[in-house]
This record gives sequence, structure tokens and C-alpha cells, in this order.
Amino acid sequence: MVSLNNNERIDQLYSNQIKIIQSSDVFSFSLDAVLLAHFADVSRKESTKIVDLCAGNGAVGLFVSQKTKGQIYQIELQEKLADMANRSIELNHLENQVQVKQTDLINTFDYLEKDSIDTVLCNPPYFPNTPQSSQNPNKYLAIARHEITTNLDSILEITSGLLKMKGKTFFVHRPDRLPEILSKMVNHRLAPKKIQFVHPKEGKEANMVLIEAIKDGNAAGIRIMPPIVVYGNDDEYTQMVQEIVYGR
Amino acid sequence: MVSLNNNERIDQLYSNQIKIIQSSDVFSFSLDAVLLAHFADVSRKESTKIVDLCAGNGAVGLFVSQKTKGQIYQIELQEKLADMANRSIELNHLENQVQVKQTDLINTFDYLEKDSIDTVLCNPPYFPNTPQSSQNPNKYLAIARHEITTNLDSILEITSGLLKMKGKTFFVHRPDRLPEILSKMVNHRLAPKKIQFVHPKEGKEANMVLIEAIKDGNAAGIRIMPPIVVYGNDDEYTQMVQEIVYGR
Repeated sequence: MVSLNNNERIDQLYSNQIKIIQSSDVFSFSLDAVLLAHFADVSRKESTKIVDLCAGNGAVGLFVSQKTKGQIYQIELQEKLADMANRSIELNHLENQVQVKQTDLINTFDYLEKDSIDTVLCNPPYFPNTPQSSQNPNKYLAIARHEITTNLDSILEITSGLLKMKGKTFFVHRPDRLPEILSKMVNHRLAPKKIQFVHPKEGKEANMVLIEAIKDGNAAGIRIMPPIVVYGNDDEYTQMVQEIVYGR
Repeated sequence: MVSLNNNERIDQLYSNQIKIIQSSDVFSFSLDAVLLAHFADVSRKESTKIVDLCAGNGAVGLFVSQKTKGQIYQIELQEKLADMANRSIELNHLENQVQVKQTDLINTFDYLEKDSIDTVLCNPPYFPNTPQSSQNPNKYLAIARHEITTNLDSILEITSGLLKMKGKTFFVHRPDRLPEILSKMVNHRLAPKKIQFVHPKEGKEANMVLIEAIKDGNAAGIRIMPPIVVYGNDDEYTQMVQEIVYGR
């Protein structure tokens, strides 16, 4: 029996069997994690090695475990979040497939070999480090959302270091930082290959972007996929998002 | 009376009064030009100075003339196209507002002062210079489509040179070159501010991208506008595109 701490709950994504321990006090996954896991094109093979960086409560890696027989390594700095991820792994009986390492990203290569990983997934802190006054007063949320303990450049450097040649990475981020994300990817030998924008409603600007990049891939030929629109005019999920979240 | 050469025709865009001399042998404007002119946010003021680079048969500048009282300067290398543009200006009685200069882009600053222009519009050659064998055997079309006589880097250098501080530029291009376009813009002091993708149909990848950038603008905060979808499931223009092309 997995125990829940104060203010924790168990959420289940209906389109797969995974249950996730959540807490709005500390961290809860949102549509970003669901869409990233759906966007990630991972190999089913048992020999596949996948890393989930900035793993939070482990949602992305846990969702992706349903698409592969490969091993999934999760790296999360915050002890409370890594502990939630560990208990979710137990709750889903995935101890043989998913492992969490609670550590600073900077120590990644103490645990994982360079150039050894097939796929890196990442739902990083979205916002640059700003004066403390404008950050979330909740330290857990501030660290998960702002580039306080790491930043995009470091994350991409580690991503590129982990990946085999032609290995793939999948990021979710904010579109307002798109030029910076693309140029930093290129600087770290990650060639952007596919972009998918997420619009909250038809006729609204995108508020999320999904990016696939390949290590040492050909620089030309990025593909802009059909957009995802989250809500219909009835304020319910569109059919596309319903299928992703609740299954067909 | 404006005279037409062999194989030339006059096309009219229904959403405004402009008539354009076209020739499929040499150059005809397409939806790209219409969408770029629609996307371009120009000042109405008489003192506004607008440049249309790689002007072709002048369609973009001629369409934009309906949105402003400012002066429009068109630069086109190919004599036959510049001549078509000139006759279209005459046809529309716009001699006092629109001027064509037939010259290589590289000579732009012989005619226009640096840091003097409010808005630069450009529908450049989309494709890198490839072996001649894979280019269009029609020289006019090859030069209009491939980077044979100029390239993105030179065009952006001239664009940036022309613009006043905080002047705006509007480009239409192919999305498969997006990371290169954005990083080259940034290298030339042009901060991308708005992107709008054009998808031929719902569920299809984008095949066109519209980009607004500001000279010496703030690097952060690009906006991804709602996409334009060109055709509906009935293979007719969607309502959005009908309104742009035929007017309301």
C-alpha cells in the first residue's frame, strides 16, 4: 500500500492506466505533461533508454512507460517531488522500468553515461529567473517554473551530452521563447525537426509549443505540424484533446 | 492605356481595387503575396516610407498601397518583372505613391538612405541555391524562387540597414527554414515579434510562414498567432481566406 502525505491526491489519466500522486501544494502535472508524453515518439524496444529531465512528480516518464518496454530514468532535484514520483512508480508497479534519481541536473553524468541515451524528455522551468518578488512564494512551484536552479542552456547541454548520435529529444516550452530555444538547440548540436503549437482555443495565440530535435541531425527541413487546439467554443476539450486525455 | 505583352494578363484582387499585370511565363503573384500584404501592419500616415524588396511584379507593394497614404519603394532585379510592376502602377494610377527601381538589391543604398524606412516588406526567393539541374529551367522563375542572385543573409542585412530604429519588417517564407530565418533575423538586429503559420488544410503541416520583426526590438516575447487554414474540406477557400482574397 502506497501512503499519501497531507494534501496529496491520486490522479489518473483515463487514456492509460497510470495513476499519479499529485499535490497542488507542491506540484501537479498539467496538460503540458500529457501532451509532451503524447508527442514523444519513443521506440518500443526493451533496449531503449529514455531520460526524463526535470521530472517533477514523474508524470511524463510514467505516461511514456506505456508506450515502450525500454528503461526510463528520471532526474529530479526536489526531494519532495522525487519522493512523490517514487511512490507513483510503486503505485503503478513500475519499479522494474522506471527509476528516479533525486539530484541536481549538474550531476547527471555521475549516474548516466554520456552518448548512451536514445530519447530525452523534458518539461523544464518555463520562465527566466526574475526578481524573487515576482516568483511564486511557494518554493517548490517557484523552482519548477522559474530558471532558479538551472536554465535552458544547461538543460540543453546535458540533453545533448546524454543523447547518442541521432538520438531524439522532446521538449515542451512556452512559444514566447521560441527563437531562443531553437538557436540554443542548434548551438548544442540538436537539430529541431518538428514543432507543434498548442492553442487554448481556435483564434487564440499559442500558449505552448512541443519541439522534437535530433542530435547531429540535418539542420534543414523542420516540419510545422497541424496545431493542437485545446478547448472548443463550448469550453470542453476538443475531440483531439479528449482522445489524448481520455482515450478513444 | 497600358499595353500588355505576349502571354500577359490582368488579375484583380477582389478585396481591393488593385489590378496586377501577370504572366505565368515570367512571374505571377500567388496567395503568398496576398497574405503578406494582409499580414503587414503599416502606418496610414502620409510620411510613412515603405520598401518592398524582391518586389517581382509588384503585387505586395501594390496591395499594401490600399492600406496607407505613405510612399512605397519597390526594388526588383529582373527588368521584365520591374517593367510589369511599372505598368501595373500606371494601370492603377498610383504613380505618385509607388515607385519601382530595377536594380540588384546590393545597390539599394544608392537610392534609399540607411535608417530611413518605417516598414520593409519581402517575399524573397524561398529555396537555397541548388545545382542548376534541379532549378526551374525558366530563368525568370528560377531567380524569383531560388537564392541565385541574392540570399536570406544579404536580404536581412539590407532590410536591417534600411529600417529606422523600431521599424518593422514583414516576411513570408517557407517554414522548413524557420530556425535559420529566426537566428539570421536576430543576427541582423531584427527581433521576431509575431509568427503566423499557414496550413493548406486542417490537419496538414504548415507550408508558409509570416514573420514580423522589429529593428532593435526586445528579444523576448514572440507571439504565435492563430494559424491560417487555406482550404476547407470542400476544397474551397475557408471563410478567413475568402475574406482576405475577396473581401467581406
